[in-house]
Amino acid sequence: MIIKSQITTELEHILPKKNILSSVEECYVYSQDGTNDITSDTLPDVVVFPETIEEVQAVMKFANSHKIPVVARGAGTNLVGACIPKKGGIVINFTKMDNILEINKTNMTAKVQAGVVVGKLQEAVSKMGLFFPPDPSNLKVSTIGGAVAQSAGGPKTFKYGTTKDYILGLKVVLADGTLLKTGTNTIKNATGYHLEQLFIGSEGTLGIVVEATLKLIPKPETTRVVMAYFDTVENATNSVTNMIDKNICPSTIDFMNKNTLQTVEKFYPCGLLTNKESALIIEVDGFEISMDTQIARLETVLRLSGASEVIISHTKEEQEKLWTARRSSFGATAKLKPDVVTNDMIVPRENISKLVSGINEICQKYGLIISIVGHIGDGNIHPQIALDLNNETEVKAYEQAKKEFYKLTLELGGTLSAEHGIGLEKKDFLKNAVQPEALEYMKKIKKIFDPNNILNPDKIFDMN
Amino acid sequence: MIIKSQITTELEHILPKKNILSSVEECYVYSQDGTNDITSDTLPDVVVFPETIEEVQAVMKFANSHKIPVVARGAGTNLVGACIPKKGGIVINFTKMDNILEINKTNMTAKVQAGVVVGKLQEAVSKMGLFFPPDPSNLKVSTIGGAVAQSAGGPKTFKYGTTKDYILGLKVVLADGTLLKTGTNTIKNATGYHLEQLFIGSEGTLGIVVEATLKLIPKPETTRVVMAYFDTVENATNSVTNMIDKNICPSTIDFMNKNTLQTVEKFYPCGLLTNKESALIIEVDGFEISMDTQIARLETVLRLSGASEVIISHTKEEQEKLWTARRSSFGATAKLKPDVVTNDMIVPRENISKLVSGINEICQKYGLIISIVGHIGDGNIHPQIALDLNNETEVKAYEQAKKEFYKLTLELGGTLSAEHGIGLEKKDFLKNAVQPEALEYMKKIKKIFDPNNILNPDKIFDMN
Repeated sequence: MIIKSQITTELEHILPKKNILSSVEECYVYSQDGTNDITSDTLPDVVVFPETIEEVQAVMKFANSHKIPVVARGAGTNLVGACIPKKGGIVINFTKMDNILEINKTNMTAKVQAGVVVGKLQEAVSKMGLFFPPDPSNLKVSTIGGAVAQSAGGPKTFKYGTTKDYILGLKVVLADGTLLKTGTNTIKNATGYHLEQLFIGSEGTLGIVVEATLKLIPKPETTRVVMAYFDTVENATNSVTNMIDKNICPSTIDFMNKNTLQTVEKFYPCGLLTNKESALIIEVDGFEISMDTQIARLETVLRLSGASEVIISHTKEEQEKLWTARRSSFGATAKLKPDVVTNDMIVPRENISKLVSGINEICQKYGLIISIVGHIGDGNIHPQIALDLNNETEVKAYEQAKKEFYKLTLELGGTLSAEHGIGLEKKDFLKNAVQPEALEYMKKIKKIFDPNNILNPDKIFDMN
Repeated sequence: MIIKSQITTELEHILPKKNILSSVEECYVYSQDGTNDITSDTLPDVVVFPETIEEVQAVMKFANSHKIPVVARGAGTNLVGACIPKKGGIVINFTKMDNILEINKTNMTAKVQAGVVVGKLQEAVSKMGLFFPPDPSNLKVSTIGGAVAQSAGGPKTFKYGTTKDYILGLKVVLADGTLLKTGTNTIKNATGYHLEQLFIGSEGTLGIVVEATLKLIPKPETTRVVMAYFDTVENATNSVTNMIDKNICPSTIDFMNKNTLQTVEKFYPCGLLTNKESALIIEVDGFEISMDTQIARLETVLRLSGASEVIISHTKEEQEKLWTARRSSFGATAKLKPDVVTNDMIVPRENISKLVSGINEICQKYGLIISIVGHIGDGNIHPQIALDLNNETEVKAYEQAKKEFYKLTLELGGTLSAEHGIGLEKKDFLKNAVQPEALEYMKKIKKIFDPNNILNPDKIFDMN
């Protein structure tokens, strides 16, 4: 067993000293991630900031030879404890590998290092008339490496899919330091197994993504936002099916429930109708010339679906204002109590109103304050719960409520996570969501890539 | 070692006699697939037509216990010998498992058995205002199981992606008869590894897909087709980048070279301009109201990109006429010689004109008659070569030319197959296209799913 000081000394042969942190104070910072409700007393032994793939390989070679746990970290914004180094060891931080290596307009592809911030990439490609749709709400800080690891989605999934749909190839450093090159530089590929897909959503347990080749698409000319209020959640959900009937494919169909409307309006007054059961924020995109027709048709559909109010943005400012309401929901909910936690569940869309009402009931039962937002087009909701994480009773209540959330979600034909991942947060529940045989094969795959179980060892599932 | 008659007898305990074929004549039919240039002297021992998942499981259990090779087969339309039972054994034919189990409009998903014909599914969802975009050109006969196995694409990839992007979950019977349930019924999923993705493009070597849950999207209101002629291939390619600049995202950007134009016009005269170097068939879709603007803008882009003629369809009939030219290319090429073979390569789009001219040169060198079509938006071309497969000299010339095709493709940063797969046809070249370490991991994965190497044992790569 190698001791902490030895680990640091050895790593100093691999990376410049300035790229190694090992004081208790420094390591403390990296003992947590964006997950509020999981705390860990274990600090990593050391945090390294590689600048090259070779450095990552050398770190892994060293770690593997001593069976030291390794956690890869982008911006640490994940919400399931995926970056928490519960077993100590080495944290590899990718913030110094944040170069956009290429944006190729002709090929409509980009090559990026793992530490590139999603929002920065989106801006860069946008300037070239291109579009990288996956936009997790933390995109201003979260990284491509993290988006791949957690299989990130975002509001635009309804029309454009998730990160998974934009990965053409990945360079991955494996547990033993091997650099695995998966996928291609081409838009399509039917040349052997899609190994690159295996790493998407694997949360750094199979290998460490160091570089990604991404598919880009042409940028839509314009966008327009509509907000619609409903007196029931069912009507809001049904409106989506009615949109399809009229050939409307919004880029976003986001949802806020009554509590959310009331909470946002309380702290960030912007004229929301707080007596309504739910509101949808719908973004459509396409050619400027199609917008008036698209919006008119959408308004008709919404009214016929029972919308009691429909607000249409005519300017960029009005559009921004409608989005601000949705974006403020997390911050507003956070003001109700010292802390806020958020979750992520998905069901087939036909069951979304049952999920929303069920979650409300569960929270009522446990006396939890909840606002619900989500991507209703996908059947994906994010309950946001305000609580005091220092209050043991409240924490226990939330723990109990979560179990019931997951149980209900699975009963409704859904699954544990749509776009946040499993991490530490949900791993005890994975066996309820995934067929035992499938779990067995996931473990077999883990074993061939990481026989010593050093890569983010306690995430998604425990190895037997 | 079990003998043929015993295999049949044993299988009669699993399936009704009417669903088992074992005469030489019957087995001969299933010794080949859609691949003209690979013939096999080996017949399967028996062909079975299961009607239930349980039957498939029982067949696999039996096959595994006796280490009998098994080849799954949909319509057998693949072009790389993926269904050829080179080692004999059992062919499992899925034509009797062709039920669309569910089309759920609210959830925008479909559940289908593996033997469902792609075109039949497309029609069924279309009637409900939904759209399943992957449309391989053989969609009128090819099956979903085959599309998954070969990672099928089609003309609509540019805007809509390939089969891979529409698979939410798969039921797969493994080598030992286990029924593996992968993925979910939901639009997004970040709940453990994406096992379902591993089977896409695995050509039945890892497991046998028996059921698929598919993502559907809202159907675009209308489509319009434009044909543009160019005096160089470069100009045709560059026009795609210019379309992106104008926010145009066609659903299809297909390509025909001069030989194709001449050959089609010779056998199916439809007024093609045979003195042009290349033609593009471009399909745009969306709202009727946007069509005139979209088409006008597209025409401007095409003219500025050097198109010497632009033909715009105004009616469904005119649209059909333009498509007929493109669709006739294979049949027309087939008329030049007793046989025709087609291939599938992809490069980053910036290199497509180099690939086209290089392939032409190679064919000239070997005296081969070639017409080139493809999905130029994706950088994907299909050389169609007319030859006499009974003429040894011509066959040898084609074999040699193919090697040079693949070498050139890889030199241009591309890969061996975009949408047809590897099968027997290209497996000797896989090592040039895939990193040795990646190939090693593919084999390790094959080994955990199929330790006895009975599933389509000689396809994609040989196990050591």
